[in-house]
Amino acid sequence: MSLVLDPAAQDLLFREARTANTFTDEPVTEEQIQAIYDLVKYGPTAFNQSPLRIVLVRSAEARERLVPLMAEGNQPKTAAAPLVAILAADNEFHDELPALLPHFPQAKDVFFTERPVREQAAALNATLQAGYFIVGVRAAGLAAGPMTGFDFAAVQKEFLDDDHTPLMIVNIGKPGEDAWFPRSPRLAFDEVITSV
Amino acid sequence: MSLVLDPAAQDLLFREARTANTFTDEPVTEEQIQAIYDLVKYGPTAFNQSPLRIVLVRSAEARERLVPLMAEGNQPKTAAAPLVAILAADNEFHDELPALLPHFPQAKDVFFTERPVREQAAALNATLQAGYFIVGVRAAGLAAGPMTGFDFAAVQKEFLDDDHTPLMIVNIGKPGEDAWFPRSPRLAFDEVITSV
Repeated sequence: MSLVLDPAAQDLLFREARTANTFTDEPVTEEQIQAIYDLVKYGPTAFNQSPLRIVLVRSAEARERLVPLMAEGNQPKTAAAPLVAILAADNEFHDELPALLPHFPQAKDVFFTERPVREQAAALNATLQAGYFIVGVRAAGLAAGPMTGFDFAAVQKEFLDDDHTPLMIVNIGKPGEDAWFPRSPRLAFDEVITSV
Repeated sequence: MSLVLDPAAQDLLFREARTANTFTDEPVTEEQIQAIYDLVKYGPTAFNQSPLRIVLVRSAEARERLVPLMAEGNQPKTAAAPLVAILAADNEFHDELPALLPHFPQAKDVFFTERPVREQAAALNATLQAGYFIVGVRAAGLAAGPMTGFDFAAVQKEFLDDDHTPLMIVNIGKPGEDAWFPRSPRLAFDEVITSV
């Protein structure tokens, strides 16, 4: 075996984990989200800029505002999931940068004075962190259902502000009945990876 | 503990794993890369579109072409890393979509006929996959050094084509001496996560 990670962990995070379309009623606790964050916060980002921000849609009132903004096919599962998280990129991440990068506090002023540069960096690095977050949800024994089928402008207006760009919305919970389609095929190694 | 993933795996993937700036001479084998891909290929993407493509810079000749395209601060480590991988988004991923999504082969024509739509989807989903890939490199007991400090247009011209947009370049290997700075701080839970 070329992997050091033990096979049970491989199964938990990748091989048996699946995108869930249905969930049980079991709630997702604040402790679980805290444990997930305390793990995945260590995932690397450029300049440790850590631009991912997460809004947990916990109240019934907030859920009612969110569901109609989802694409029709995503509405039933977003209505039913124990927890829904809005993942966003903070385009003003540079404000925290001197604290996040103590060995290079000038980075904020050297690289990130321009908003378009920040937006591009925030989108890339927060999306990387979204990948870590999905792995972290699985590390808590939960299923994630990431979705990009929603009205981005409306979700930004309703739940975020001009400085926070939505990236995706993730349903979280224990998988329910008929939670997924059969696993779809993946590309072969040599369709993805070439050497020069 | 709120996590199901065992603590050794948590350490391997997140808590003790670090972005390496120096590496030993030990080569990264094709078997290792294959094992990493065979694990992380299962990470979820929208419509299973799987747009990440990877160019492994294996030959001395290719390495010589790449190093000068890196930002000056990244040149020594990119010259020294046992393996360097260029991660890119395939903007023509829709060609593979009918094979990747057998239960909804029309997705290609319903959602992805326009190039700008594909570019946006490919950037987001390939970056998510880059997050899985970094986790996978760590699952192989290797350190990853992801970098965005390079000439994107020049790397695209030299190693890719108009249909493949570079996302980041990743040094891969066993960490060497003084491989990293002390761990930088992370944001507190309530600076990142709010509930509504």
